[in-house]
Amino acid sequence: MPHNSLTMKNRFITYIKSLQNNITQSLEKEDGATTFREDSWKRPGGGGGKTRVIENGGVFEKGGVNVSEVFGTLPESMQQQLGVKHRDFFACGISLVIHPKSPMVPTVHANFRYFELYDKNKAVVDQWFGGGLDLTPYYVFDEDAIHFHQVCKTVCDTHHPDFYTKYKKQCDEYFWNHHREEARGIGGLFFDYCRPNENMTADAWYSFITQMGDAFLEAYLPVVQKRKSLTYSKEQRQWQEIRRGRYVEFNLVHDKGTLFGLKTNGRIESILMSLPPHVQWVYDMHPEEGSEEEKLVTLLQQPKTWV
Amino acid sequence: MPHNSLTMKNRFITYIKSLQNNITQSLEKEDGATTFREDSWKRPGGGGGKTRVIENGGVFEKGGVNVSEVFGTLPESMQQQLGVKHRDFFACGISLVIHPKSPMVPTVHANFRYFELYDKNKAVVDQWFGGGLDLTPYYVFDEDAIHFHQVCKTVCDTHHPDFYTKYKKQCDEYFWNHHREEARGIGGLFFDYCRPNENMTADAWYSFITQMGDAFLEAYLPVVQKRKSLTYSKEQRQWQEIRRGRYVEFNLVHDKGTLFGLKTNGRIESILMSLPPHVQWVYDMHPEEGSEEEKLVTLLQQPKTWV
Repeated sequence: MPHNSLTMKNRFITYIKSLQNNITQSLEKEDGATTFREDSWKRPGGGGGKTRVIENGGVFEKGGVNVSEVFGTLPESMQQQLGVKHRDFFACGISLVIHPKSPMVPTVHANFRYFELYDKNKAVVDQWFGGGLDLTPYYVFDEDAIHFHQVCKTVCDTHHPDFYTKYKKQCDEYFWNHHREEARGIGGLFFDYCRPNENMTADAWYSFITQMGDAFLEAYLPVVQKRKSLTYSKEQRQWQEIRRGRYVEFNLVHDKGTLFGLKTNGRIESILMSLPPHVQWVYDMHPEEGSEEEKLVTLLQQPKTWV
Repeated sequence: MPHNSLTMKNRFITYIKSLQNNITQSLEKEDGATTFREDSWKRPGGGGGKTRVIENGGVFEKGGVNVSEVFGTLPESMQQQLGVKHRDFFACGISLVIHPKSPMVPTVHANFRYFELYDKNKAVVDQWFGGGLDLTPYYVFDEDAIHFHQVCKTVCDTHHPDFYTKYKKQCDEYFWNHHREEARGIGGLFFDYCRPNENMTADAWYSFITQMGDAFLEAYLPVVQKRKSLTYSKEQRQWQEIRRGRYVEFNLVHDKGTLFGLKTNGRIESILMSLPPHVQWVYDMHPEEGSEEEKLVTLLQQPKTWV
């Protein structure tokens, strides 16, 4: 059966499951010391997911690569947030956050999702894709940031000359830690409400988002490979744990996905797998002038053009 | 000059400054190894505060005891949240969170505050007190919880026979970590919008809240003294760090004071001094059946009557 005869929903579900397998297998190979454990869960309102978590590995201290497909009736608050009128929905996606042990290896986040809304006859009346990927280093290696952004740009450019610039900007805006007036990391891409229109069919969006998903390992793994064997000091590890605190602050105070999950009875442990393993808060900590730590803080105060 | 000829505002400012001195001096004496550092800060819109922070002490791993007095014009969102019409305001208070090093010693939080609103002629048109204190243990010692609640009840009972029951219940409700369906700790008191009325004059409220403030050390210090020399294992320390994660989750996701501060340009480092020093998130961690850790989790699922 050619895949075009399948519904978009089923094609995307098949895709994210296969991507979850590819990514977890590659990360396990890279880690070398441990593997992901898997928890399957059901959602009372409809659907469920598979959460895969890695902890205390050789390279990866904590990480999750989750897929979920959920359906049912949207709460009114969610209808308002999405700006939609129809209540019957389906949503599926893959979501991952990886926290490496070494402060020299950046944390990474990626998410690729698909949404459908139905009328009373169960016909699809609205559909869109969303997602993105972004990098959060603790120490800045310009070539890593350039590589990550270059992979993002290359995929974007195959689909539309404006995509990279537009979705890079949206990423810088979304992952802004407002109360700190700084970025969570060095960005990447963020896109949402990618609906079929005169320029992009649903198939074209599917092709864009799955190519982005396929490029995730290409964007991240070379950075891991380059940095994972670097030595680091106790002080550098402490810096990483302090910066992880900013990651927690963003996810718990500002991240719409996390807050929506927490306030609507999502599976808490799958949502909060994004939180780092060891974190510190030190009162009013400022890095030394001219240090590598200060270089990061300065960089995060203003989005930068990498490619 | 008899203090009654002073405005309530000035009386309360004098009181919280003196309480800050008493509390920091007593905690320093209890700690034995280090002292608080003080940062004075100004608020651009009007007012400022003194933040006192202790870090890496003999007993206290991280803690802050802050006073602030701020005034100016309320943002509309804050008028709505408070349910008030007048915009010119004054607020002052003392706020403290203490995270001991040992998992056998509970974390404590207290806050005592006073609020005034003015009409166009700068006359006071509304005024109220608020505050409370609550305890967050990592291991449960019933006698500590009973002692803490008994001190709260004794002060309450001097002022009104219903206060303890009412404010204890409000505390259990406020410090509820909704997304975890568990309490942050074993409670204490929480009260707000304590306005002068037919039963309680402003002076009577002042007397209630300052007696509560004076009783803080009596409620907390004996618990510290009893538990600070107990030995503990690496696993018990890990349990404390994991439970501190729940403290972070409450403060960043649910606490109205923290969120208001973060979203309205408060002094970030003074607001977030409440966050614990070392914190862990472990995926889907459940304590062993019959363990002391499980005892805590079970206790937090349902508010308990202690006295």
